[in-house]
Amino acid sequence: MEFSFTVLGSSAAIPALGRNLSAHIVQHDSNVFLIDCGDGTQLQLDKHKIKKQKINQIFISHLHGDHVYGLFGLLTSYSLFGRVNELEIFAPAGLKEMIDIVFEKSFAFLTYPIKVHLLPTEGFNLIFENNKLSVFSFPLKHRVACNGFLFREKEKPANINPDKIKKYNLDYESIKAIKSGSDYITADGICIPNSEMVFPKQPLRSFAYCCDTAYNLEMVPYLENCDLIFHDATFDKSNQENATLTLHSTSEEAAQIALSANAKKLLLGHFSSRNKSLEVLLQEAKSIFDASFLAEEGKKVVL
Amino acid sequence: MEFSFTVLGSSAAIPALGRNLSAHIVQHDSNVFLIDCGDGTQLQLDKHKIKKQKINQIFISHLHGDHVYGLFGLLTSYSLFGRVNELEIFAPAGLKEMIDIVFEKSFAFLTYPIKVHLLPTEGFNLIFENNKLSVFSFPLKHRVACNGFLFREKEKPANINPDKIKKYNLDYESIKAIKSGSDYITADGICIPNSEMVFPKQPLRSFAYCCDTAYNLEMVPYLENCDLIFHDATFDKSNQENATLTLHSTSEEAAQIALSANAKKLLLGHFSSRNKSLEVLLQEAKSIFDASFLAEEGKKVVL
Repeated sequence: MEFSFTVLGSSAAIPALGRNLSAHIVQHDSNVFLIDCGDGTQLQLDKHKIKKQKINQIFISHLHGDHVYGLFGLLTSYSLFGRVNELEIFAPAGLKEMIDIVFEKSFAFLTYPIKVHLLPTEGFNLIFENNKLSVFSFPLKHRVACNGFLFREKEKPANINPDKIKKYNLDYESIKAIKSGSDYITADGICIPNSEMVFPKQPLRSFAYCCDTAYNLEMVPYLENCDLIFHDATFDKSNQENATLTLHSTSEEAAQIALSANAKKLLLGHFSSRNKSLEVLLQEAKSIFDASFLAEEGKKVVL
Repeated sequence: MEFSFTVLGSSAAIPALGRNLSAHIVQHDSNVFLIDCGDGTQLQLDKHKIKKQKINQIFISHLHGDHVYGLFGLLTSYSLFGRVNELEIFAPAGLKEMIDIVFEKSFAFLTYPIKVHLLPTEGFNLIFENNKLSVFSFPLKHRVACNGFLFREKEKPANINPDKIKKYNLDYESIKAIKSGSDYITADGICIPNSEMVFPKQPLRSFAYCCDTAYNLEMVPYLENCDLIFHDATFDKSNQENATLTLHSTSEEAAQIALSANAKKLLLGHFSSRNKSLEVLLQEAKSIFDASFLAEEGKKVVL
């Protein structure tokens, strides 16, 4: 089952050096989720052949323009394609007012319903789930209300070994019990441990999105053992002062978070246009957390 | 003195087939003007190496999203570049309300003043001028308030022939009178016609932007003898019904306007995504007005 993260824009604040504004895709099973939607996102979706009609949930971390101004064009284009499916948008307070006035003044007519969910400003909260995946939000440390997101697979019933069904001639009730974790007691009263009746479970995968944020160890408990963390790495360490001032992170700080959370991989993104080359950011991160990688337009990381 | 028109986006309504949303540049002398600003325009400005800091006037034909949603990103990026020069925006009613609420909710802080000028909804009106160029607006025929723009060079004082200054030993007052069009009367009372004293004037050039609009002969008097008309050519003639319904034009209708106005060249643009190939549009236009051309991203037409 696919679980991947694709970068559509890796630039902070302004498009620069061929890097576009923040927009990212999470694909899980047959679901496509959009995280953030900077100016021109619909063009990036087309360029990287993302099936945008399949996006039914959009997660907006915060309302700075480089994360949200592409929404107006994307939402109206959906109408021009005749979309009928409801679109859910998870965002901080203020988005609905923006959309309402922009659509009123630009005579936009939507062919489908939009439901805007207000993101909580505190704590770790379940904001969306389907039968295979949960999405949680948690506060980041930025100049304005800003959220991180954790995408975590749900526990699935175990897959029973068909050879055991045959061997013990299992009935429906027994199969159901074994799939739920019970051991099996044979007609002779022998206990067969559950682990011998089912295939080993696939480990549950998780992905965390932490952008834009200052260095913040408080969120580490939410990120523990993540397969992939995407983290703000706006600056290299020579620009630590700017990072502190603007509540962004250096790539070293991003790496420290990944290390503290015992993550498997770290994807660095949201690069300042000061970074003509990104090699310094990568090396600084790798000195702390070796499994660090650079975001780039179109890059897909499979979990 | 440069006078040119550059296409940054030739698509109608949605970005499609590699064609971007409406945005166009007029360069005259050292001035750079932007006409319309669809989603992602700042990316197109960068891609086509337009010096966006030189844009001090933006003309918005109407408030449909594909002509205006790129404005939010462009205006905030200007601040991030530390712009201080005033920016004038000429637009129909509603733009200021959109900008105000979007900037408030997205915490945008501008480092420079914006002056939004409301476009007249009737008649042919001078809306901007500098010492070399006048810009006029006039109503188009669309589903919402929509304006065309005429960029027309100003009459310049004639250049006096320096040989004549020497020959007749002209004083300052005489030179001034001749430059203003007077004949010269010699000390002997002989009249030298003005045309013999000055170099022939360069013809005054003009460019008209007519997008989005239904076929509308009423505007032809404003477009007479234009060097270049950019005209809505959303559909080919097999889609005449759609053109009529949506108040757009076919390429034949655009050509009819150029012919009626005795224009020198016609640039067809604002293509529907139905037009997989644009060859049909071009041929249909050329059958009526031979000097017809197709807009394409990055194409610059020098007047």
